Amino acid sequence: MDIHQALVRLGLKLPTPPKPVAVYVPSVRSGTLIFISGQLPLVDGRLELTGRLGESVSLEEGKQAARTAALNGLAVLDAELSGDWSKLVRLVRIGVYVACMPTFRDHPQVANGASEFLGSVLGEAGRHARAAVGCPSLPLGAPVEVELLAEVAP
Amino acid sequence: MDIHQALVRLGLKLPTPPKPVAVYVPSVRSGTLIFISGQLPLVDGRLELTGRLGESVSLEEGKQAARTAALNGLAVLDAELSGDWSKLVRLVRIGVYVACMPTFRDHPQVANGASEFLGSVLGEAGRHARAAVGCPSLPLGAPVEVELLAEVAP
Amino acid sequence: MDIHQALVRLGLKLPTPPKPVAVYVPSVRSGTLIFISGQLPLVDGRLELTGRLGESVSLEEGKQAARTAALNGLAVLDAELSGDWSKLVRLVRIGVYVACMPTFRDHPQVANGASEFLGSVLGEAGRHARAAVGCPSLPLGAPVEVELLAEVAP
Repeated sequence: MDIHQALVRLGLKLPTPPKPVAVYVPSVRSGTLIFISGQLPLVDGRLELTGRLGESVSLEEGKQAARTAALNGLAVLDAELSGDWSKLVRLVRIGVYVACMPTFRDHPQVANGASEFLGSVLGEAGRHARAAVGCPSLPLGAPVEVELLAEVAP
Repeated sequence: MDIHQALVRLGLKLPTPPKPVAVYVPSVRSGTLIFISGQLPLVDGRLELTGRLGESVSLEEGKQAARTAALNGLAVLDAELSGDWSKLVRLVRIGVYVACMPTFRDHPQVANGASEFLGSVLGEAGRHARAAVGCPSLPLGAPVEVELLAEVAP
Repeated sequence: MDIHQALVRLGLKLPTPPKPVAVYVPSVRSGTLIFISGQLPLVDGRLELTGRLGESVSLEEGKQAARTAALNGLAVLDAELSGDWSKLVRLVRIGVYVACMPTFRDHPQVANGASEFLGSVLGEAGRHARAAVGCPSLPLGAPVEVELLAEVAP
């Protein structure tokens, strides 16, 4: 699996894995599972936008933010795999948290920004179970946070 | 374990597993763990009700919605097990997300709608760890979303 | 690992594991993973404070509440380990849910109350992946809920 080539086709490249914004680690491996900390739509250490869906953030912007957060998750996974993506068995689950108004109902579309991107990059191995929910706010005022769980070869 | 008989005693039967409302899969197996995507209280493809706890949705309605979402989770699990429930070792964890007002405090009672139902159907194998939290809103305006994690025999 | 000594240095001791506030179990072991139910900042069966961050609960109070919830999680883990902490391989992940106003942005600092505490007590084995998100409200009006996932020796 050459994810770098897939990223290039999308006009993207893996960023440097974002540093956790507090005292925890970017990822933990336990057996064949890799738990990746919640990722924000950080670009070069800054949020690409802040705000809430159903208020100042549009659906398209929310999808884009979910994609950026997922890209950051792949950067963390790349570091955990030491760049050897042949070790990846598959994604298992993603959690998508959407900062939104109480009237907002389109969490699935926002989360699709992450899901579709992960499918584009990882193909069949990118298919995942998912939970998408709303939050009144997220760290630093982010519109979206994305958590990944992946399975690797023993 | 004859869960169908247990369901009949509750006046229920397994529905067709709801289709994911977006681009992800209903469940993923990794080793002996089955991760089931967040389930909504869908009945025949439609939410049985919308709204928030502490506002338009009563505690009883919220419990019922949690039960319906959990039933949908069992339908997904049934498909993953190809109907062979002897493979189920146990439920492991459920996550219950409750759409609610900031003043709402009874998330545990709402979540009990799922927990008690799962215990009724699965007995000892239905006992689970749980996290229950509030959300300003959930996909499609659902009052409750329930995520399941199960363990199966190797 | 003598966590009791580490706790004494922090002026703490393990409480009796809080009883779940509803029908579920405090923890479930599946293979080498132990899933611990969402913990509230209960002290002797009562919340040490209620309210929301960005409103009536200060950042310091929120951090303290996260620490108390994490301490309760260690009490549950102690019971699961039958007090034998040599069986603990490491913490794997924590989920930190913060009851907060829509304008609140400091979820990471609140969650650090749990993360720093777990690092103090468990050392290297306490390092974990993390997701920290906001909620409009949490069970019983708690300001924080903390969920733990740990790995134990086979």
